[in-house]
Amino acid sequence: MTATAILNDESFMRQAINEAKYAYEKDEVPIGAVVVCQNRIIARAHNLTETLNDVTAHAEMQAITAAANVLGGKYLIDCTLYVTVEPCPMCAGALGWSQITRIVYGAADHKKGYSMISPKSLHPKTTIVSGVLEKECAQLMQDFFKSKRDRRPF
Amino acid sequence: MTATAILNDESFMRQAINEAKYAYEKDEVPIGAVVVCQNRIIARAHNLTETLNDVTAHAEMQAITAAANVLGGKYLIDCTLYVTVEPCPMCAGALGWSQITRIVYGAADHKKGYSMISPKSLHPKTTIVSGVLEKECAQLMQDFFKSKRDRRPF
Repeated sequence: MTATAILNDESFMRQAINEAKYAYEKDEVPIGAVVVCQNRIIARAHNLTETLNDVTAHAEMQAITAAANVLGGKYLIDCTLYVTVEPCPMCAGALGWSQITRIVYGAADHKKGYSMISPKSLHPKTTIVSGVLEKECAQLMQDFFKSKRDRRPF
Repeated sequence: MTATAILNDESFMRQAINEAKYAYEKDEVPIGAVVVCQNRIIARAHNLTETLNDVTAHAEMQAITAAANVLGGKYLIDCTLYVTVEPCPMCAGALGWSQITRIVYGAADHKKGYSMISPKSLHPKTTIVSGVLEKECAQLMQDFFKSKRDRRPF
């Protein structure tokens, strides 16, 4: 990758991190995502599973739906999804159906990430980049779960 | 399974087939689903990916969201999902998050079904029953794709 591409990836991942912070403020698992098409953000989303009482309301799922709405078509060709944490099997399945061109994620999820559970869910042509601003993305998750543990009564 | 349980499974699968027929009428891949809790249907849905321009609009995904809405909680404990075709990895991932108690499906999907691609996506406690009214469920799919092929100009 060129220096400009790396700079762009970090810049867009910062926007995904901002989304993750919105989730954190709502006491949601802090994961955020943006979809970029032609160097422009066309969708932003953050995890809302608690707020909406809906296990399907992951950041990626909402971002996919919103991006398709903007594009007027269900395939996310020439789009990149930036997401702070490695997608789960559900989101990887949805990304597979969308035929998205590129996925950039920050922190790996060694327990529930798609690469451990369902590595074949993505479209074979989709490019994956991992580890972009990994430390910041992971730190948000660690802080969130630590604060949850600290709040337990016993 | 007892005779009554089989009868119930077939009865509820007929309702899922009815949903699949609604999808067919809309020129959507004919897959339907219902969610049953305490022997009562609490959610009905059919595939709407074309109508909504949204790859996430599978019957199962909509049924999960609708059922959680009825229950007022995101976990589908003591619920059964009836779906005419084996769930894909996306839907299996969502069903895994929902911790649904039981899944009953009709026809297997040997190309894109979760059991081929992501067999570990479901919750380990979820019970799976397959092959209920399999022939009817599969026939709808075959008829749909045959009609699509027949309509091709060359």
